[in-house]
Amino acid sequence: MSRFPAKVRIVEVGPRDGLQHESAFVPTAEKIAFVNRLAEAGHTTIEVSAFVSPKWVPQMADAAEVFAGITRRPGVRYTALVPNLQGLARARAARVDEVAVFPAASETFSKRNIHRTAVEALADAKRISDEARAAGLRVRAYLSTSFGCPFEGAVAPARVADLTARLIDLGAYEVALSDTIGIAHPRLVSDVLYEVTRRVPSTSLALHFHDTRGTALVNVYAGLEAGVSTFDASAGGLGGCPYAPGATGNLATEDLVYLLDGLGVVTGMRLEAIAAASRAIEPHLGHPLPSRVFRAMQATAARG
Amino acid sequence: MSRFPAKVRIVEVGPRDGLQHESAFVPTAEKIAFVNRLAEAGHTTIEVSAFVSPKWVPQMADAAEVFAGITRRPGVRYTALVPNLQGLARARAARVDEVAVFPAASETFSKRNIHRTAVEALADAKRISDEARAAGLRVRAYLSTSFGCPFEGAVAPARVADLTARLIDLGAYEVALSDTIGIAHPRLVSDVLYEVTRRVPSTSLALHFHDTRGTALVNVYAGLEAGVSTFDASAGGLGGCPYAPGATGNLATEDLVYLLDGLGVVTGMRLEAIAAASRAIEPHLGHPLPSRVFRAMQATAARG
Repeated sequence: MSRFPAKVRIVEVGPRDGLQHESAFVPTAEKIAFVNRLAEAGHTTIEVSAFVSPKWVPQMADAAEVFAGITRRPGVRYTALVPNLQGLARARAARVDEVAVFPAASETFSKRNIHRTAVEALADAKRISDEARAAGLRVRAYLSTSFGCPFEGAVAPARVADLTARLIDLGAYEVALSDTIGIAHPRLVSDVLYEVTRRVPSTSLALHFHDTRGTALVNVYAGLEAGVSTFDASAGGLGGCPYAPGATGNLATEDLVYLLDGLGVVTGMRLEAIAAASRAIEPHLGHPLPSRVFRAMQATAARG
Repeated sequence: MSRFPAKVRIVEVGPRDGLQHESAFVPTAEKIAFVNRLAEAGHTTIEVSAFVSPKWVPQMADAAEVFAGITRRPGVRYTALVPNLQGLARARAARVDEVAVFPAASETFSKRNIHRTAVEALADAKRISDEARAAGLRVRAYLSTSFGCPFEGAVAPARVADLTARLIDLGAYEVALSDTIGIAHPRLVSDVLYEVTRRVPSTSLALHFHDTRGTALVNVYAGLEAGVSTFDASAGGLGGCPYAPGATGNLATEDLVYLLDGLGVVTGMRLEAIAAASRAIEPHLGHPLPSRVFRAMQATAARG
């Protein structure tokens, strides 16, 4: 197993990608406590919220209030998604450490999701990146539909590689190749990473999986084998619901940490502390969290 | 990916290991239809039931009736679990093709679960194997707690290897190394297989995972990398429940087939036909089936 990276960085996206996809609006004070607990659990990068239109994403309407309420822990970067310069201005006012842009690899998905062609989305990302970096902020990029598109089906790995290289060129320190619809499998992960790492070093890549088909962990494994050492995850598997067909969350942080602990890969995370954050947020969601490791820990505690 | 086996055999254990762990008693006619649908989906080995005491396992009380009712499809082996010679006699009367014995790797688990020391359990298995093979039946063995014990914790891989070799010596054509409590991770899978394959060829091994901590698929991946080409799975992830803490089913057949299809490994299975079997049994369980791929297929069908 020495072929794996010795250490992995986990980017916690639960407060943003997770809560954004919950139907319930979680009270602002609970979101603040959640972010603080995640930092205490050992996270070094936490995506706290998104500065998007509250009309389209009401769950993120309190982004500024959440940033104002959290305790900033030294060594932790508190980040936010921004779709445009207006969002960036709000993010700067909220004193975020890092912003994330989110173009798509699929042309059809880009047009339908953000009403931009891929080229237009890159131009937008460049404007955001230029202004953010001039203000001293780091810029991350998600590349949506890197492993498949709900409208087009397969997306050419060479196209993913080209767009990733352009995102690095325009100033992103890291590109998170994102399996937006949770369709990836390990061979596809290997194929995409083979093409992308011909253009961009694996140290500038992250992998962002959704567990729609239960393959998130095995895809992480394929990513580790290809030398990737940064993975996105969501406490408890937030954003998913174990019995609602179609509600599919991110890879759960607990499941990822259980795997990495088993493999002997250092994460700096404390599993019990992540579960404590999940346990506190769960009652505000209206359904159980789907993380298998979290559920197993809850069952053990109940028998305790 | 050429390091993987070109072809994988899936042993469907849903009608036995799955239904045995459901709280509901599924009507006999539904069990019969379930087994017939699983055979139509492409399975070549189906564990249909268990000839155990109905006092201990009421869900399997109709084992003989299920065997009497199924349509025997050419090329399919219909198997049953048997704990003792009395069970074997009932299995023979029901015209099973193959029986399975189930000693444990952990001494404490063996004593608590089947009230036998490991050595006594092996002696029992030998008596069953001798009589079964004399009657023309194939014998399979599960080795429970091969990756950890709920009472002892870690189980030495060398002990697992030794017991596996003894089970092959006493006539089992295959030993299914079983992660009874769903605690395995890929490094442990590699470690155990390293020891076991020093004594027994990988072609005589199967892997039997429970998805308690979401690691079943990634453990399969580690097994494939070590050359194992037989895996147990349960349609829909039967035996598990997505929101009941502690109710944790087998690896779901749909999830396994989705992975193997993606890897280009031949299974001979039709995913839609497995899901059809799951869809028909689900209303008799009182809860949704946990398979992520099945749930994603149901969501797609609902959006239609």
